[in-house]
Amino acid sequence: MKLLEVKAESGPSRILIGERLSNLARYIDPERTIILTDDRVLSHYRDRFPKGIPVIVMGEGESHKTLSTLEHIIGRLVDLEADRASFLLAVGGGIVCDVGGFVASVYMRGIRFGFVSTTLLSQVDASVGGKNGVNFGGYKNMVGVFSQPEFVLCDSEMFRTLKEEEYRSGFAEIIKAGAIKDRALFEYCSQHASAALEKDADVLTHMIYESVKIKARVVEADEREKGERRLLNFGHTFAHALEKMTGMLHGQAVAIGMVLAARVSHQLGLLNAGEMRSLISVIGSYGLPVKSEIEPRELFNAMKQDKKREGGSIHLVLLEGIGKAVSRMFTYDELQQITDDLRSDF
Amino acid sequence: MKLLEVKAESGPSRILIGERLSNLARYIDPERTIILTDDRVLSHYRDRFPKGIPVIVMGEGESHKTLSTLEHIIGRLVDLEADRASFLLAVGGGIVCDVGGFVASVYMRGIRFGFVSTTLLSQVDASVGGKNGVNFGGYKNMVGVFSQPEFVLCDSEMFRTLKEEEYRSGFAEIIKAGAIKDRALFEYCSQHASAALEKDADVLTHMIYESVKIKARVVEADEREKGERRLLNFGHTFAHALEKMTGMLHGQAVAIGMVLAARVSHQLGLLNAGEMRSLISVIGSYGLPVKSEIEPRELFNAMKQDKKREGGSIHLVLLEGIGKAVSRMFTYDELQQITDDLRSDF
Repeated sequence: MKLLEVKAESGPSRILIGERLSNLARYIDPERTIILTDDRVLSHYRDRFPKGIPVIVMGEGESHKTLSTLEHIIGRLVDLEADRASFLLAVGGGIVCDVGGFVASVYMRGIRFGFVSTTLLSQVDASVGGKNGVNFGGYKNMVGVFSQPEFVLCDSEMFRTLKEEEYRSGFAEIIKAGAIKDRALFEYCSQHASAALEKDADVLTHMIYESVKIKARVVEADEREKGERRLLNFGHTFAHALEKMTGMLHGQAVAIGMVLAARVSHQLGLLNAGEMRSLISVIGSYGLPVKSEIEPRELFNAMKQDKKREGGSIHLVLLEGIGKAVSRMFTYDELQQITDDLRSDF
Repeated sequence: MKLLEVKAESGPSRILIGERLSNLARYIDPERTIILTDDRVLSHYRDRFPKGIPVIVMGEGESHKTLSTLEHIIGRLVDLEADRASFLLAVGGGIVCDVGGFVASVYMRGIRFGFVSTTLLSQVDASVGGKNGVNFGGYKNMVGVFSQPEFVLCDSEMFRTLKEEEYRSGFAEIIKAGAIKDRALFEYCSQHASAALEKDADVLTHMIYESVKIKARVVEADEREKGERRLLNFGHTFAHALEKMTGMLHGQAVAIGMVLAARVSHQLGLLNAGEMRSLISVIGSYGLPVKSEIEPRELFNAMKQDKKREGGSIHLVLLEGIGKAVSRMFTYDELQQITDDLRSDF
């Protein structure tokens, strides 16, 4: 087990990487804990939750990441007579943790909370950063706050109950962390794809630890995304639009988004062809998609719609090399030109 | 105009006491501001809002302090394409400010906000402290966060549109501030009741400034109510139960609650009879009630229900003298005995 401590503006957080669910009792007071989870996680792990702890269940999937679910959970907390001393433990992937962190941050103006992060994606992404919330009217994470879980227990054995596609999609964020900030991690990903896909515990612990560390350092410097934290959005401007249009998994959309951002970087003369191809090849080696059927112009329009509340221009994160990302501002016209130019071999 | 700066854990806030609504333009950027108000305030002040600023309207009164209202306002913010750079200005009493502060704190994980506080009660109470939120399932302020408005504009001329009863109820919190922390303010209240009731601007500015200062210092030391801040609840344990049972105004319930807490203090040998009577007399001189028709045992049961999520005991704030409050913990049995003993002259 490797411990990573995050000291963000909204509070400290301990990420327990490679810890086991069976050791959960070390981190909670069973008298004060209430578990939040979803149908699917409950079906796999019900028998492994500590006995006697009340469990609140929400539906599985993005469609349940809503204010109604928040209302439902708050109603259950009231029924359970949860008070200021209660502790909410969200057990699940990114959605359960996003909703649970938000509920805990607003119930009685904030109670303590922690996560058992059950998916690879949530261990490397939602576990750190303190962003939580729910969707609203088709916009992702429109309502929420910044606040840090006291701990995040990351057990890679829980990946055994993930669908293969969901598991693989988690590697997109690990590759991203390497691509923007850490060439060594990127090369490690490049060399250990088969061990990682076979769920080798040591390889996973290393990859998760290194990528969480990168995210943690960025978040410590800029929790509220005023500058540095934007770099974590590498691939995400395209990805959010793709996810919305196709319903593909977040990691798959990020994979394609990174390829597009790398191609834009190359086209603008920032990234050389060899490094661009190297990124595409590593992404592909994890069974992740590197292109989509969507027309660039269609994607551009969806992006514009998605970002409409951010004014007339878009921040795009580009690469100057593997391990070196930069954030650039583009007007819609510039971006449309760029996506049109990509069209030929899209 | 007197400026008071509050530096709380969740951020700084500037309280502009005795400022005028007509100077609002000095404090906002009209391009980025959206106003939230209620029906009643809108009917009085529509023409005095700066031109061209979008206005979101909520229903008036406690019954609108709900998650549905939050959802309605968020929907309107999305329609108005409010973004991270938007500024929400809540114009109203405590309810509009509580809801507005909460909406602003969760919309896109937090946008900037400020208040124009239109009632005496909200100027001396909701304006400072950073508590916001909505009710849930009959429990007050069950869902919310701590966060500070950038500024609170307090214009005592706006009291002219308050109902007399509502205006008077605001003095309960001013008298409370004096009773728990500041004998000089208490004596000022005692000597200036008629000028205050006639809305003398200088007298009001002095009273509001002094009571806000007391609250600000307490909140700076203990925003999240772990100790010192509990003293601000003088009279409130009884008041919350009374409000719920009778529907009386918050300030009226606090007035009766303070009398009850003073009588308990006297009964326990903490407060002498002269000071107890002096408190009751000042409260009465502002046209506030000093007793209720509710049976003590009934009140006790409501209090127990209200506080059930805080475990087997209740914090009660008592006086050791005018200007000197202490917080004491009582079990339900002890408190029942005490309220029973008060019965004779309830």
